[in-house]
Amino acid sequence: LAAAGALGGASVLPETSAAEADRTRSPGGVRNFRRIATEEAFSTPEQMDAMAALGHSVWNSLDFVLWRALTDSKNPHSPLRDRLLDVDHERLRIMDELGVDMHVLSLTSPGVQMFDPDTATSLASVANDRLAEIIRQHPGRYAGLASFAPQDPERAAKEMDRAVNTLKLNGFIVNSHTGGEYLDEPKFWPIFEAAEALDAPLYIHPRCPPDDLARPFRDYRMESSTWGFQSETGLHAVRILVSGVLDRFPKLKIVLGHMGEGVPYFLWRIDYTYNAFRPAGQRMKLTPTEAFKRNFAITTSGVNSHAVLKYVIEVLGVENVMWAIDYPYQAAPGSVEFMNTAPVSDDDKEKLFHGNAERIFKIATT
Amino acid sequence: LAAAGALGGASVLPETSAAEADRTRSPGGVRNFRRIATEEAFSTPEQMDAMAALGHSVWNSLDFVLWRALTDSKNPHSPLRDRLLDVDHERLRIMDELGVDMHVLSLTSPGVQMFDPDTATSLASVANDRLAEIIRQHPGRYAGLASFAPQDPERAAKEMDRAVNTLKLNGFIVNSHTGGEYLDEPKFWPIFEAAEALDAPLYIHPRCPPDDLARPFRDYRMESSTWGFQSETGLHAVRILVSGVLDRFPKLKIVLGHMGEGVPYFLWRIDYTYNAFRPAGQRMKLTPTEAFKRNFAITTSGVNSHAVLKYVIEVLGVENVMWAIDYPYQAAPGSVEFMNTAPVSDDDKEKLFHGNAERIFKIATT
Repeated sequence: LAAAGALGGASVLPETSAAEADRTRSPGGVRNFRRIATEEAFSTPEQMDAMAALGHSVWNSLDFVLWRALTDSKNPHSPLRDRLLDVDHERLRIMDELGVDMHVLSLTSPGVQMFDPDTATSLASVANDRLAEIIRQHPGRYAGLASFAPQDPERAAKEMDRAVNTLKLNGFIVNSHTGGEYLDEPKFWPIFEAAEALDAPLYIHPRCPPDDLARPFRDYRMESSTWGFQSETGLHAVRILVSGVLDRFPKLKIVLGHMGEGVPYFLWRIDYTYNAFRPAGQRMKLTPTEAFKRNFAITTSGVNSHAVLKYVIEVLGVENVMWAIDYPYQAAPGSVEFMNTAPVSDDDKEKLFHGNAERIFKIATT
Repeated sequence: LAAAGALGGASVLPETSAAEADRTRSPGGVRNFRRIATEEAFSTPEQMDAMAALGHSVWNSLDFVLWRALTDSKNPHSPLRDRLLDVDHERLRIMDELGVDMHVLSLTSPGVQMFDPDTATSLASVANDRLAEIIRQHPGRYAGLASFAPQDPERAAKEMDRAVNTLKLNGFIVNSHTGGEYLDEPKFWPIFEAAEALDAPLYIHPRCPPDDLARPFRDYRMESSTWGFQSETGLHAVRILVSGVLDRFPKLKIVLGHMGEGVPYFLWRIDYTYNAFRPAGQRMKLTPTEAFKRNFAITTSGVNSHAVLKYVIEVLGVENVMWAIDYPYQAAPGSVEFMNTAPVSDDDKEKLFHGNAERIFKIATT
């Protein structure tokens, strides 16, 4: 989720021609890799309605500052609502034009995490049913990450089981904090336990910083992808990384978007500090860097920088990096072009465009 | 300031032999670059006493959580206090052994920023007098960044003028927020105005997040270089970058430590978001990336990673990167070895080790 071109200045949303491209041909002469985009947002009428109902309050949570801006139907520059709800028309047309085979769909941020436990649990269940149906109706074009309500960790674990074993979804999505709390806290361990037992990855997607940490992000529209998202989600990931909880769940796989939310940049410093200054009596089995490489994978969403791509491949290994667009918040053509022209071997490009996603999300190879 | 090896597990502080090295020879057979370390901490008896006095309170600011740990005289593993106060003995011996010609000294974090305006202004003035005297007593071995009290911006500007024009110091140091406020706010503009007019750089060094943002950093000793420092200081830098204030002070030079506190990693994303989602009516003359390259320089303090070094050289240009140790919080041998073995040309190494520092801090070339 990037703070999209829905408002403000020049639109950065995809410009598409009317012509339908032949999906079997290589677009623009580029080798026709299978392209699986791994952080692609959708919404449901139920999420839209529930958020709109909450939005009539005076709650000034940063997530609402952002949500109201993005989905305001009175804003003629805001096609985002329609794009989030569409999985049958424009989305597929853009995918076809750009040679994108598959979107790994996830309920858009902040998911169900602004609701009371019962409402959130119900919304997640309905969204997961819809997601499974969308995937069924479009064979080969979609995979999906299941929502759950961290507000009720025990019921969340049950829904996670249903999502994988009944609905055959490919993993889970959570939008960073829940009520200002983070998943390293023991109350949430049933969620990690379920993800590990189900051998399915948990994508920790950004949302805006919680209310009590919001103050400095209220200026200059910093609440989302300028800095609030990476500040919030990077903090979340580092808490998990240095809490020791990964010793308890060594097979847990967490996915971070946006090139790892800044954590890969600081692994050397985190290692050094942890070695010098960890809490008395704590000693993790692995260094933070080792744990990051074992337990985390990242996607390229929202950061179409070859310099960053080269960096994360060097420090994490190409196996831990997956391509993503962040549709509809990010312009799809630029994201495809970014990876088409990446300064890596075709073998690595196969891994980045689809191989790693197939392995991590258990997507059938074609 | 890294959360040093003063506590916890294995010491990471420098191990030095008794033998004095001949400073004119190349240490370890490496070409004998002039080495200017640009983020090196010192303290004054007045700062130590004033912090100790405040430390008797129940104030649980994260800066005090850290300060008490680092300087607790009852902790036998804490030689940091002595190392901060020493500029005549062990510091010079370690510099000599490693072929380090010069430390650019700055009053250790959180500087004078936890005191009332009068106390802070006075402490800064005394520290600057001491710093000028230290430099005078050790020709060629030290340069210095002046402290000031952002609590009183007008008097700060006067002290900045005195520091450059009377004391001949090389720039300024500030430790991120002051009372939870950031330098982009108009009340602080006299500080930017003075720095620009004096053509002297402002080093924005980390301190811990302010009290109202502290909560998630109270676990797992995350308050300092694990994540609190970079979270706080990165936020500060991004506020400055997207506020538009750099259009007002186009010649201001800001220095960030720790490889730019994460900001360089996210420049692509910040540009994209700013273009799509900037506040209505705001349009900066430069993109955030262009402004960062014009108005900021960074140092390598606390991040001895060749992968990060290559990245920042690629995105910022080698002219914008300076070497630093972060003595006494970071082990000096590792920091010297990091740059001795950096995968860059000798020409670039000359810039990183001293050339850029000479230009930015106006240090006389030898």
